[in-house]
Amino acid sequence: MTGTEIQEIQDDGIAEVAVLGVDKPLRLDSGAALGPIHVAYKSWGTLNEDKSNVVLICHALTGDHYVRGVNPITGKPGWWQNMVGPGCPIDTDRFYVICANVLGSCCGTTGPAEINPATGKPYGLDFPVITIRDMVKTQALLLDHLGIDEIFAVVGGSMGGMQALQWASLYPDRVRSVVAIATCWRHSAQNIAFHEVGRQAIMADPNWKGGRYYDEKDSPHAGLAVARMAAHITYMSESGLTNRFGRNLQDREALTFGFDADFQIESYLRHQGISFVDRFDANSYLYITRAMDYYDLSADHNGVLAEAFRGTKSRFCILSFNSDWLYTTEESREIVRALNGVGARVSFADIDMDKGHDSFLLECPELDDIIRGFLVSQAEQKGGGLS
Amino acid sequence: MTGTEIQEIQDDGIAEVAVLGVDKPLRLDSGAALGPIHVAYKSWGTLNEDKSNVVLICHALTGDHYVRGVNPITGKPGWWQNMVGPGCPIDTDRFYVICANVLGSCCGTTGPAEINPATGKPYGLDFPVITIRDMVKTQALLLDHLGIDEIFAVVGGSMGGMQALQWASLYPDRVRSVVAIATCWRHSAQNIAFHEVGRQAIMADPNWKGGRYYDEKDSPHAGLAVARMAAHITYMSESGLTNRFGRNLQDREALTFGFDADFQIESYLRHQGISFVDRFDANSYLYITRAMDYYDLSADHNGVLAEAFRGTKSRFCILSFNSDWLYTTEESREIVRALNGVGARVSFADIDMDKGHDSFLLECPELDDIIRGFLVSQAEQKGGGLS
Repeated sequence: MTGTEIQEIQDDGIAEVAVLGVDKPLRLDSGAALGPIHVAYKSWGTLNEDKSNVVLICHALTGDHYVRGVNPITGKPGWWQNMVGPGCPIDTDRFYVICANVLGSCCGTTGPAEINPATGKPYGLDFPVITIRDMVKTQALLLDHLGIDEIFAVVGGSMGGMQALQWASLYPDRVRSVVAIATCWRHSAQNIAFHEVGRQAIMADPNWKGGRYYDEKDSPHAGLAVARMAAHITYMSESGLTNRFGRNLQDREALTFGFDADFQIESYLRHQGISFVDRFDANSYLYITRAMDYYDLSADHNGVLAEAFRGTKSRFCILSFNSDWLYTTEESREIVRALNGVGARVSFADIDMDKGHDSFLLECPELDDIIRGFLVSQAEQKGGGLS
Repeated sequence: MTGTEIQEIQDDGIAEVAVLGVDKPLRLDSGAALGPIHVAYKSWGTLNEDKSNVVLICHALTGDHYVRGVNPITGKPGWWQNMVGPGCPIDTDRFYVICANVLGSCCGTTGPAEINPATGKPYGLDFPVITIRDMVKTQALLLDHLGIDEIFAVVGGSMGGMQALQWASLYPDRVRSVVAIATCWRHSAQNIAFHEVGRQAIMADPNWKGGRYYDEKDSPHAGLAVARMAAHITYMSESGLTNRFGRNLQDREALTFGFDADFQIESYLRHQGISFVDRFDANSYLYITRAMDYYDLSADHNGVLAEAFRGTKSRFCILSFNSDWLYTTEESREIVRALNGVGARVSFADIDMDKGHDSFLLECPELDDIIRGFLVSQAEQKGGGLS
């Protein structure tokens, strides 16, 4: 591993890129070796003397490390602006908060759009297929690089929650507490099905060209937009869509009897697709959805999820939303039951909110209160400078 | 209207094409006039002397009039082979059963792939946007043509159920009884959203060419397959997918760390997409999904659904499946409440079956029993040759 380069300072956070796995490439689940690996990350707050105040935030499928502050790619605020910061539920006056862009993504961390050192050209589909565990191992390399042994809390929603649970399973001695929100312990057939539709939409776009589009004039934006639209429906609840859009028309008094976006929901969905392609790489979408589909915490334990956590000393906070049909409350309950089965300390709450899966990204006072309370309680139990 | 041409006789049914609206074109909801209109239909059983034993079956989005017998397009049995026939729940020994391919479709009835008499070329997007009501008006023209005034029962699932309800609302004097299965009274924001994804997938396919692909070497098969894949997920329940496929691998012992169909669900879904394009026209998919999105029985009644049925003398049998998340049990209950509100005679059953929306097309003894019982009971009440 080599040095760390400070790129820019925004708001109260510091964005950096670490170069990892130079001397010793990372051995991936596929068997492939990958290195060097660039990892783009951002941090907030101050690391205390005994390095005991680290909160690692893991982001979702299309997220990034711009949790807080202006996202330089979109010019918009970070995706958890009100969750992380001074006085926020994840309080940067108390904690040293880190978030790294995941392996395979496209916001500064090594992924299919980055240059393959072996060829001098972008990886494209020569990039190895990765897993959630590979993402977590990469984050562990980053913490090694920063001289951090123990994480006070690993926190994430959706795919971020998968990483948080994977952290606890893979590195039980390094994780003091886990907050896993709106997530699951393995991708279901329906989850895989929706992702497969997205991948087929991308691959059906003639501009995809087998993943070798980086030097071309056009990218597979049309396919990627369709993939995003299909996925976006799964992020919202039926009642949430009905309450927000219903059958309301878009800037018109009556149906036009054509194929323009007559309904607000159509216009909204098209916007979601179009705006997504400006900030995300189609191949990264393929790789990260594949990693999520491959995710099954029970797979190495003969299908018994509880065994993935046997002997754990971590404290768990498992949170679901009752309107989330992508990763349902029942799936969170299955995680809770498995943790109970091995005597782990676990809190669980099913939050009443009608916004569906994306609730964890929206203003939700109950979510704020629970996360704040859980972290304060863990800090008090730990004592020292944290209480 | 002009004559009827017998095309072929298959099994125990007769397939015919009626040419309607020749002298007087059909005035559509859009304001456009359409004619002549070819309507492909198939019939089974014998029309009794007073023409009182007519059962009209309405098909779903991608269905056709090949309810029973060999479908000449696919070479497979009809889509309701076990529901309709001698001794079946819809008993062709007793009833004269008709099903017509809907307006806008591509199995013999006039739609965007058919020749526009004004230009001598396929309509493409010059075909007018149609509604569920336009489909029903076309069926009414067909019955006029056949000299049939009253329908003993109109029966349909999914979009077929929409037509059945629309029949009762539009022609209350012509419909004695209605069986509406797994359907709704208006398309929800989520319903529209899924259809919009499908349409965008088709329109994003460069082979679509604004709908003018009929003379081209290639059709927008890739986009249409993606549309079908996305829709197909909504036809199955999460638990049904888990029970049938789970995370089972397809013809392999372990994950391949690639983008082939590792999982059975991926392979199944790809097959659904690929096989669909051989039997369906992409423009028809656009038009029929649009008709479904435009469907809202309450729209002409200030949003009050009950008013769509005020004064009805029809008897209704409303059926839902508890695992159907596309058109939910709650939506069927809303229909029942509206019918109760105007004093209509209505039976309702929510059938316990874990196969999701497509349950109505699958073997379901409870569905068979209910439909058989409802029709027998209606026939006994009617008396005459039917009891």
